[in-house]
Amino acid sequence: MSTDFEPSEYISRLQRASEFSAAEGIAALLVTPGPDLRYLTGYHAHPLERLTCLVVPADGPVKLVVPELEVGTAQASPIGALDIELVTWQETEDPYALTAKVLGEPGHGARMAVDDRMWAVKAIELRRAMPEAEQLAAGVVLSELRMRKSEAEVTALIYAGEAIDRVHAQVPQWLRVGRTENEVARDIADAISQEHETVDFVIVASGPNGSSPHHMASDRVLAQGDVVVVDIGGTTSVGYCSDSTRTYALGEPDPSFLADYAVLVEAQAKACESVAPGMTCEEIDAVARNILADAQLDEFFIHRTGHGIGLETHEEPYIVSGNQRRLEPGMAFSVEPGFYRAGEVGSRIEDIVVCGVDGPIMCNKRPHELIVVE
Amino acid sequence: MSTDFEPSEYISRLQRASEFSAAEGIAALLVTPGPDLRYLTGYHAHPLERLTCLVVPADGPVKLVVPELEVGTAQASPIGALDIELVTWQETEDPYALTAKVLGEPGHGARMAVDDRMWAVKAIELRRAMPEAEQLAAGVVLSELRMRKSEAEVTALIYAGEAIDRVHAQVPQWLRVGRTENEVARDIADAISQEHETVDFVIVASGPNGSSPHHMASDRVLAQGDVVVVDIGGTTSVGYCSDSTRTYALGEPDPSFLADYAVLVEAQAKACESVAPGMTCEEIDAVARNILADAQLDEFFIHRTGHGIGLETHEEPYIVSGNQRRLEPGMAFSVEPGFYRAGEVGSRIEDIVVCGVDGPIMCNKRPHELIVVE
Repeated sequence: MSTDFEPSEYISRLQRASEFSAAEGIAALLVTPGPDLRYLTGYHAHPLERLTCLVVPADGPVKLVVPELEVGTAQASPIGALDIELVTWQETEDPYALTAKVLGEPGHGARMAVDDRMWAVKAIELRRAMPEAEQLAAGVVLSELRMRKSEAEVTALIYAGEAIDRVHAQVPQWLRVGRTENEVARDIADAISQEHETVDFVIVASGPNGSSPHHMASDRVLAQGDVVVVDIGGTTSVGYCSDSTRTYALGEPDPSFLADYAVLVEAQAKACESVAPGMTCEEIDAVARNILADAQLDEFFIHRTGHGIGLETHEEPYIVSGNQRRLEPGMAFSVEPGFYRAGEVGSRIEDIVVCGVDGPIMCNKRPHELIVVE
Repeated sequence: MSTDFEPSEYISRLQRASEFSAAEGIAALLVTPGPDLRYLTGYHAHPLERLTCLVVPADGPVKLVVPELEVGTAQASPIGALDIELVTWQETEDPYALTAKVLGEPGHGARMAVDDRMWAVKAIELRRAMPEAEQLAAGVVLSELRMRKSEAEVTALIYAGEAIDRVHAQVPQWLRVGRTENEVARDIADAISQEHETVDFVIVASGPNGSSPHHMASDRVLAQGDVVVVDIGGTTSVGYCSDSTRTYALGEPDPSFLADYAVLVEAQAKACESVAPGMTCEEIDAVARNILADAQLDEFFIHRTGHGIGLETHEEPYIVSGNQRRLEPGMAFSVEPGFYRAGEVGSRIEDIVVCGVDGPIMCNKRPHELIVVE
């Protein structure tokens, strides 16, 4: 899987983006390089200071404002097959004024939606160039589209899941007493790189470091008896992300940890099993949280149960208390409960799950049991 | 060079940021994970959806709004030594309202400057939480600080330059007739990775692809007689970027190309030599452009002469017509003229240059002559 999607998929996404915009009373979406641009057109441009901006009006043709010297790159991307007019600018021109002109100089209250990840400095420049317009975040349209994955996208997520599973399968050989977290992380990064286009993050959190959920890796030396949380991910060539956590141990941990860990395995599995159309995001969170609560572990479960995933590692929907969104087929997210005893030990199990018509589709298939490295 | 700067350097940067803000009538800087946050505090956090926001008031103590579950990571960074109060929030709280509260609910017209790279969705949420305040881009303060590199930063840029020079030294062995640009790019990326913390970009633009300045790499197969533009860069462990271009050829090119290339060598060298305090950015640009113009090559030099570099590959100052900023000691930027004959051939030479007290400090030291691989 190393090619982009068919032009028809991008054309359909652009059409839906226009339709959703019209329904929201949005005059146009303004989309700079990043995951939204890649989603809509397949153009995977590096976000830099020169303005590249896709203009998707609620009504009318899609255009791309692009620096003259990036025309070749844009045309070589899937955008070249999408019948999108390129509006080019030279090094000494003002591309923000040009964008306002492309939009017909929007009048008072015209609602212009900028992509969520646009640099603030660009959003502010666009506001300057369209002082009468109202600016809002385009997530209201684009998150709605992106969180419902097509069949091709689900295939891409399963492919990414297989890639990271192959990395986890190799992790035990690198976990050795006397090595540092950083040394292990370097081996893992090399393996992720073999299986993905980019390495996004490598968490190797050993012993007490495991109790900080977002610890990355340090010079701490692995010791006998350590529990090690390994949370890793990358982005594949088609742009879809992997993200999976397994917990390892250097030698058999003490029985009280093992008892807690067994509860975690159950909480994670039951939360995955509960994924089905119509369930709310907070209900999935509650499934895991309640099982941990029954064992007095909920106070140590200090984060939400999961996050959506796709072209970004973290995107909607978030599996968190208060999120009453109902799951629909194609929604994809992590299920990753954990427990963290400050300064002592941490533990987490994470799989990517897609909501299927009849229940969960699991993207990660490695066993959940504690992997004890002797 | 694998450690962060001394706490005293960050403390001094934060103080100057407050002073510059006061002088600009800015009430506070709001800085999310990215190069500005790393510059001010050494905290190299991954930009994600949960709000982490450094609050730097023009007057008063610096605070960090941070998710509870990232407190450990923040404290383990240089921020832990900077006497910055952490204001934490839980998964179901509104961190934007919390930030407004930390700022004392800014009143009408209070000028709040958000970091240039902040996600638009976060800037928009901050505006919602502080509806009376005026929002502007913090570059007006932070670019002014960041573009004047300290001695330690210049050392970091020289270190980055040496790293990428070692990669360019290996490039000839990978350029072989019959290999694809992508294959060559993969070898180069591996080498950049050995010398840096991250691989930022790898341009291998062969034959006609060389005439697109931002072509990355493709499946094009290298052929005898190709000119190949190789523009590569990475970020070292302390966060400073490398960026250097050399032009290679597979066998001796035709004499007309060689004549053009000799002009390019002269244009690039003369532009570098002209770097000195008091020169304007556009004057440096003009030095290169005029030499190319004398040989009727200026119409093929379709981009600015250079860009600043530091914690980002592209930052201020930009070496471009219209930029009348005068160079000062510590300003660092690329000098990279090129010429691009559409559909035929391209050529570029790029070094990073620091403006020293007495003239240019060259960060890249590889020869400029066309490197002919037989």
